[in-house]
Amino acid sequence: MKIYFTFEPRPDLKEPLVEEFPNVEFVFDPKLDEKQLPDTDVLVTYGEDLNEERIELATKLKWIFVASAGIEKMPHQAIHDRGLLVSNVRGIHKKPMAESIIAHILSLKRALPFIYDNQKKGEWNKKAQLSELNGSAALIIGPGAIGSEIGRLLQAFEVFTIGCNRSGQEAPFMNETYKIDDLKSVLPKAGIVISMLPSTSETRHLLSYDHFKQMGENTIFLNFGRGDVVSTDVLTRVLEEKLIRHAVLDVFEIEPLPADSKLWQLDNVTISPHFSSHSSRYVERSLEIFKPSLKKWLNGDDNVENKMDILRGY
Amino acid sequence: MKIYFTFEPRPDLKEPLVEEFPNVEFVFDPKLDEKQLPDTDVLVTYGEDLNEERIELATKLKWIFVASAGIEKMPHQAIHDRGLLVSNVRGIHKKPMAESIIAHILSLKRALPFIYDNQKKGEWNKKAQLSELNGSAALIIGPGAIGSEIGRLLQAFEVFTIGCNRSGQEAPFMNETYKIDDLKSVLPKAGIVISMLPSTSETRHLLSYDHFKQMGENTIFLNFGRGDVVSTDVLTRVLEEKLIRHAVLDVFEIEPLPADSKLWQLDNVTISPHFSSHSSRYVERSLEIFKPSLKKWLNGDDNVENKMDILRGY
Repeated sequence: MKIYFTFEPRPDLKEPLVEEFPNVEFVFDPKLDEKQLPDTDVLVTYGEDLNEERIELATKLKWIFVASAGIEKMPHQAIHDRGLLVSNVRGIHKKPMAESIIAHILSLKRALPFIYDNQKKGEWNKKAQLSELNGSAALIIGPGAIGSEIGRLLQAFEVFTIGCNRSGQEAPFMNETYKIDDLKSVLPKAGIVISMLPSTSETRHLLSYDHFKQMGENTIFLNFGRGDVVSTDVLTRVLEEKLIRHAVLDVFEIEPLPADSKLWQLDNVTISPHFSSHSSRYVERSLEIFKPSLKKWLNGDDNVENKMDILRGY
Repeated sequence: MKIYFTFEPRPDLKEPLVEEFPNVEFVFDPKLDEKQLPDTDVLVTYGEDLNEERIELATKLKWIFVASAGIEKMPHQAIHDRGLLVSNVRGIHKKPMAESIIAHILSLKRALPFIYDNQKKGEWNKKAQLSELNGSAALIIGPGAIGSEIGRLLQAFEVFTIGCNRSGQEAPFMNETYKIDDLKSVLPKAGIVISMLPSTSETRHLLSYDHFKQMGENTIFLNFGRGDVVSTDVLTRVLEEKLIRHAVLDVFEIEPLPADSKLWQLDNVTISPHFSSHSSRYVERSLEIFKPSLKKWLNGDDNVENKMDILRGY
């Protein structure tokens, strides 16, 4: 039984893992070495180092544990055709990412960019309109693990939370939940709109110019799901026309955001370089998900945490 | 019965107030006019327009309602000698101010200044260490109304909250509470230290260089109480020597912070121009405190909300 990590955890995280599973052969490499693939049973990867040939090389492979949430760069069909078990660390992002989202919302409400700018100029300037998160309403499109954690925190700030998902079924920490089909009629209710949608054929360019026209001019839009939920052209137009107050973007259609993108020039947008899930506690938390899953799987139970449908993408 | 406001609420807030108390004569001025004082029974003020002479002029005055938390600029002895009832809007600050404090902490943990700076340079740069508020420990010195609200929000982020007050008696939303006398031994426990202390003879320069030496080098210190809890010289030395990671200051010994203050030059400090209690909902909330208090007082009950001891300062 060989488990191959294509990244290297810190010694204080690696050693307890190896000790806990004495019958498993662990191999850790800072990056994937194809020579390791033929006898690997379980592959632990950030999900960006696989392709069809490598899946073919890994003839004994049964399970890919992706220490990331996105699987866009994986060879979906090849993995599906082999019937490989795939699981990821979906839950891991929820705390740091929800913190980033609350950070950005509060920063805008409490005028932090204004404070930072005036400090740089050495100016004592009180002339900002400070508003409150308290008492707002927020719409979370795609209230999965991360979206629910955002809802939980928002509710602590006495925010009314509205979820929007495919089924319209109740989601945790949402005061109300609607179907994605009803999105347009729900948008005017919320001063904060957060997209947490993954990239799938159904979500691509889901948000149109008309959707943004339904939002109030004081709306803060945040995209922390995937960049292609709205076309960059639509988003740029919306911001140029000031249909909404501000957009906070952690994800983009093309990443890195090209240097000549108009978005860089606008002052009603925050450009975060797709790192809002980063955390000094990331690998620690990945292993907290991996260890019980591995225990289960070694006992013959395939039903591990965050088991994925590789073709559906989540 | 005449109530004199030395500021003017918006019409949508003023009119319902006047209607609710038909037997009261209300006078609203954008600033204090001494001619109004002699027949004023109740004065509603932000607390910065009074002096001994004005208190003498107001021969009928019985109650000063201060629509602010600080009373430093009021003639304490003269008010005390006249035995005037004084109450303020202490609770009003708690939501906006707690939001500002959480905003600043999350901004540092989630690298918002780094994001803003790179955006200005047009650089897609992921090279920041993002950490988490989740799992931290925070020490709140002076866990009164605002401090407890901060504690409540911090606990939603799964932060361990430690209160520090004079008595050491339990305070709401604090996992533990210690006496101010034990402060030095408590400081090493917390990665976040927040002072909410008012300015009194007991709190002046309470925090010494030795206190900061007890904090870890990754500590974030926030002062949102009053500036003189630590001398500017001590604070500057602490930051120059990088004894702690960062200070977020909303209050200063001298305000506005003088243009030649060294603090402007340091990059491990955030200078907020003493406006973290500001909110677009400020007057609305003041009147929510004033109205029930007025009802009580008109019924002969002096025991109104936030009744103050003008000499003790809170």
